[in-house]
Amino acid sequence: MPSDNILIIGGGPAGLEAARLLADIGSKVTLVEKRDFLGGTPIAERYAALTHGFGDAEEMMNGMIERVVNNPLVEVRLSSTVTAAEGEAGNFKVSLAKGGNGSGETVVEAGAVIITTGFQHFDPGRETQMYGYYEYPDVITLTDAEGMLKDGHFNRPSNGEVPERVCFIQCVGSRDRQIGNEFCSKVCCGISSKQAIEVRQISPTSKVFIFYIDMRMYGYWENEIYWPAQEKYHVQYIKGIITEIIKKGDRLLIRGEDTTMGRPMEVPMDIVVLAVGMEASQGTRQMAQIFGIRQNKYKFIDVPHDSLDPVATSVAGIFVAGAAAGPKDLDDSIGMAGTAAIKAAGLLRQQ
Amino acid sequence: MPSDNILIIGGGPAGLEAARLLADIGSKVTLVEKRDFLGGTPIAERYAALTHGFGDAEEMMNGMIERVVNNPLVEVRLSSTVTAAEGEAGNFKVSLAKGGNGSGETVVEAGAVIITTGFQHFDPGRETQMYGYYEYPDVITLTDAEGMLKDGHFNRPSNGEVPERVCFIQCVGSRDRQIGNEFCSKVCCGISSKQAIEVRQISPTSKVFIFYIDMRMYGYWENEIYWPAQEKYHVQYIKGIITEIIKKGDRLLIRGEDTTMGRPMEVPMDIVVLAVGMEASQGTRQMAQIFGIRQNKYKFIDVPHDSLDPVATSVAGIFVAGAAAGPKDLDDSIGMAGTAAIKAAGLLRQQ
Repeated sequence: MPSDNILIIGGGPAGLEAARLLADIGSKVTLVEKRDFLGGTPIAERYAALTHGFGDAEEMMNGMIERVVNNPLVEVRLSSTVTAAEGEAGNFKVSLAKGGNGSGETVVEAGAVIITTGFQHFDPGRETQMYGYYEYPDVITLTDAEGMLKDGHFNRPSNGEVPERVCFIQCVGSRDRQIGNEFCSKVCCGISSKQAIEVRQISPTSKVFIFYIDMRMYGYWENEIYWPAQEKYHVQYIKGIITEIIKKGDRLLIRGEDTTMGRPMEVPMDIVVLAVGMEASQGTRQMAQIFGIRQNKYKFIDVPHDSLDPVATSVAGIFVAGAAAGPKDLDDSIGMAGTAAIKAAGLLRQQ
Repeated sequence: MPSDNILIIGGGPAGLEAARLLADIGSKVTLVEKRDFLGGTPIAERYAALTHGFGDAEEMMNGMIERVVNNPLVEVRLSSTVTAAEGEAGNFKVSLAKGGNGSGETVVEAGAVIITTGFQHFDPGRETQMYGYYEYPDVITLTDAEGMLKDGHFNRPSNGEVPERVCFIQCVGSRDRQIGNEFCSKVCCGISSKQAIEVRQISPTSKVFIFYIDMRMYGYWENEIYWPAQEKYHVQYIKGIITEIIKKGDRLLIRGEDTTMGRPMEVPMDIVVLAVGMEASQGTRQMAQIFGIRQNKYKFIDVPHDSLDPVATSVAGIFVAGAAAGPKDLDDSIGMAGTAAIKAAGLLRQQ
């Protein structure tokens, strides 16, 4: 008999939104999350403010979480991982293991599955050694910076001093053929600009620079973040490529080319923020394997790019939402979540 | 008594998708379209290929239309406009007039409303006179180019000859404070690059240039369109600003600045394509007025930018999907459509 349950894998923004929207139309949901808490990357990586009106990330995610945890139609399973799956649209049987040790295995029946296992940040120490991420404490990532901003300061990790000069380097792990990530991660320009504003708010004496290839502030980010960053907060945007970071005294020296001026540059900095891009998370890669879903060359879940169906996967009855399908912003993730949810519900009705 | 009907206003991609997805979960829909055909801008403006695998726009839209027109749960009202509205979430009463003359007025009851009235292209002859759009037949827009590509040619409108040199000018009507459109229209970089590829396919002897401020090819467009345009089709991208187009002999002369090289340029062209941006359509502006919905300063329907609710409007029970809420690509529109649809259905269930 077909199952009237929908399984959502991943308790970040896309998974939470899909669960809530399904419950709102009366569908039964099992939400599986491998961590022992909900909220996904914004909570796990301690995001400070979201680009949405600079709202507090934790508060906003808690709002999403509350609508799900006290919902009689949503069964939340924390600390649980998917270990195996069989069946087909209408009748999936999915094995879950509790905790890391595989104990307490249970089987969940589901008529449809929505995969919302998200992304992970590119590790800039892994391959792009030229930036010295593991070597210099004052070379940090966007994620490290979020944590500092959440704690209300933006001082040099090496000595606790307020930085005189801070820069952001865009496209670290994105638009980079050498490491195999040719794609654009879509949100880093916006997040960097948001952080640049926050740095200027916290440390008005710090000079802030953003080195970029193209500023990809599509839609309203242009007005809400990019213009204020330049005009109100005097963040300096420089089209240029940074090829090396070295230590000079107790400061950092960045070397590269200002491509607008067509000349090499060598500039001292106190904090360098690497705008790390998105890669397929381990969970995304594992779910693709377990469910036999086609992945693209970057290991994200492949959606059919020749159709108007951005939440479909290669397996009927399995949908994808959010950054499990490649770089997405939060509005994308929520849009995909709603569409995946209503498609899953529609499928079950036809069974 | 609350109505179990959902009213969708606008029969383009977002409206069609919302209608189909609602019918799939058993919801009743009235779909109102002011034109006498469905399909929205891609059909009305004769789009050639979509960026989705370069699929035929008419065929792809027809696929969406078919799922709606033969659907017993969807009542389609063509050639109909909304003239008045009253009521509140759960109980809207919306007056429709058939045709342009206001005859045959009827009232539709709806528990929720989804506005999918889209955008209109910026008219480059209106304010940016420096490009001579109304003056020179070989100065065309992205939309004009779509029509030519759909007809399978890309010859000079002035004399029917194959162009030696073609260029695209980005951000016409976008990112422009002088005309009051500071926002980025999000899709023009991608559509221009798609067309540049198509021009090279049709006329391999034509040289093709794209003048841009920033190339905003987010996500996979980078790989699917931007890289092939450069490497396989030898489209030349030049960071620069074109300030004037004049006539020289039977050709056009474009004047501006190459901002990478930091020098003025003056280049002859045979066809100039203006990458016109998006503005709020007349229908979007009218619906905002009739339903008393807040608009942003560009007259798009305002969504709450400080919340994770990209399909909400300022009026409970009224949702928005697609470019009625500002520049969107087709995947955005479909994502919003699904989310607006499931939220509308959820609202009705709670009444």
